[in-house]
Amino acid sequence: MELELIDWLRERCPPSPRIPLSVGDDAAILRISAGRQAVVTTDMLMDGVDFLLEKHSPEQIGRKALAVNLSDLAAMAAHPVAAFVSFALPKSAGPELPRELINGMLPLAEQFACPLAGGDTNTWNDKLVISVTAIGEAEPGKAWRRSGAQPGDILLATGSFGGSILGHHFDFQPRLAEAQWLAERFNVHAAIDVSDGLSLDLWRMTQASGCGAELWPEVVPLTAAAKEVAKHDGRKPLDHALSDGEDFELLLCLSPEDAHRLRLMTWPFDVPRTCIGQIVPQPGLWVREQGNLISLLPQGFVHGG
Amino acid sequence: MELELIDWLRERCPPSPRIPLSVGDDAAILRISAGRQAVVTTDMLMDGVDFLLEKHSPEQIGRKALAVNLSDLAAMAAHPVAAFVSFALPKSAGPELPRELINGMLPLAEQFACPLAGGDTNTWNDKLVISVTAIGEAEPGKAWRRSGAQPGDILLATGSFGGSILGHHFDFQPRLAEAQWLAERFNVHAAIDVSDGLSLDLWRMTQASGCGAELWPEVVPLTAAAKEVAKHDGRKPLDHALSDGEDFELLLCLSPEDAHRLRLMTWPFDVPRTCIGQIVPQPGLWVREQGNLISLLPQGFVHGG
Repeated sequence: MELELIDWLRERCPPSPRIPLSVGDDAAILRISAGRQAVVTTDMLMDGVDFLLEKHSPEQIGRKALAVNLSDLAAMAAHPVAAFVSFALPKSAGPELPRELINGMLPLAEQFACPLAGGDTNTWNDKLVISVTAIGEAEPGKAWRRSGAQPGDILLATGSFGGSILGHHFDFQPRLAEAQWLAERFNVHAAIDVSDGLSLDLWRMTQASGCGAELWPEVVPLTAAAKEVAKHDGRKPLDHALSDGEDFELLLCLSPEDAHRLRLMTWPFDVPRTCIGQIVPQPGLWVREQGNLISLLPQGFVHGG
Repeated sequence: MELELIDWLRERCPPSPRIPLSVGDDAAILRISAGRQAVVTTDMLMDGVDFLLEKHSPEQIGRKALAVNLSDLAAMAAHPVAAFVSFALPKSAGPELPRELINGMLPLAEQFACPLAGGDTNTWNDKLVISVTAIGEAEPGKAWRRSGAQPGDILLATGSFGGSILGHHFDFQPRLAEAQWLAERFNVHAAIDVSDGLSLDLWRMTQASGCGAELWPEVVPLTAAAKEVAKHDGRKPLDHALSDGEDFELLLCLSPEDAHRLRLMTWPFDVPRTCIGQIVPQPGLWVREQGNLISLLPQGFVHGG
């Protein structure tokens, strides 16, 4: 990261006890708490794919770049430690762009105690690319994984789904607090965050677990945005909920006993949590019609496709 | 990272005791050795800036993307733990490109015990961008930093400088083994790797340390490539050595006593090490002419410039 930007960031990103050295060297040093493991996630966002620099503000774009990584940490029930930010900046954009992008990240970095600890800034004659790597920590064996779902498990989702293109893909809240609350109280068998589409990410979790899932379409929470976009393209709101992606909500697998126990507890968050299905032995996604299980095709956004 | 690529990588990247979980989840879990700190570095490489996809092979490009990060870990005397790789792939390039890029990284990953533990693949209609984040570990307080150079310190360099554009910027060796050997035997006061130019990176190290450096130009090791490019542009080979950058050699500050002790020891590496100057109290870079210190302008490649 260029020195001037580092100095600027250093003033805004308060020193963290997890970062014994200040930002700015070739590398940053992080304190992982004694006995904990490091959890590392990385996502790259590109102009024209994940945002439109012409249309969206740099603050929105920067926020999203950090938030998608924090959502990945939430899906592992990891506690954020620090994030690293690299930019390929279009030369046409002017020198304020990296500061504006970082300004969009800082409130989130503060909210979730995830200081920006370093990175790499570059300029070129092409479009904006942002790569963020977030480091978290978790107790050994306690991080959630995609695998581990067991037939009979109840499928729990935070929030509602669909139509994120209308704005939610910028202003979503990484479900870190919800994940940590659940991790402290329940034995979560498997988890994933919905980045590419509810049905596609659910299918990925079941694939990793060697099983399948019966989805209960009638209880999948729909956003107002899913209904709004459905009005315009003739598809059903549920189709949008199942395939739009960038909801950044959590999907979790709990034993029926734990799911019941959760239902009886006070849920201290604004975002709803809903049981939307059950894990079944048969690989694939299924919906029940007149008592029979019918195959449901996973749909969503395939990277590199 | 897309599933198919993860499966492919999983076959080629042997499981590491430092990565208790295999690659492929939203995030990877790393074991940082008990009592050690995590060292994190990240670099982004772009087509047209750091390489030319039309001209250079994907294997060369991939190798470079990992090697620059390993060089940063060497400059901290950190031991590699794992690396994470994100791509923005041009849609025009075909599906083999990510595999070829990773194929260029794997020999280096194996040589330095730095498994590729995850990443993010994306496609777009623009140029290739590669972002690598490397995680290392170091004992608390033992990682080298840019700051810490003290007046009187001897300035030590590995290797030779200049003309890297002729090929060295692809085939350089990260100086991890040399750094670890030195770190075990000497109290290195400050260190940096030369990515942007010998004089510029030396200046950065002295700036971070609140001092300056007297450079001994007559002993700065010149590459054959520095002499070759100098033939064609009329500049001196020394000018190239001081400003070309991408040498990825180490600059280190040792007390005169340690520098003397090092001189008497058997140096078990092929790459030479040379004393090329001394730290002085006056900020800035200096060369001695007829007994007087003359200011030397730091030159090199400025990112984001």
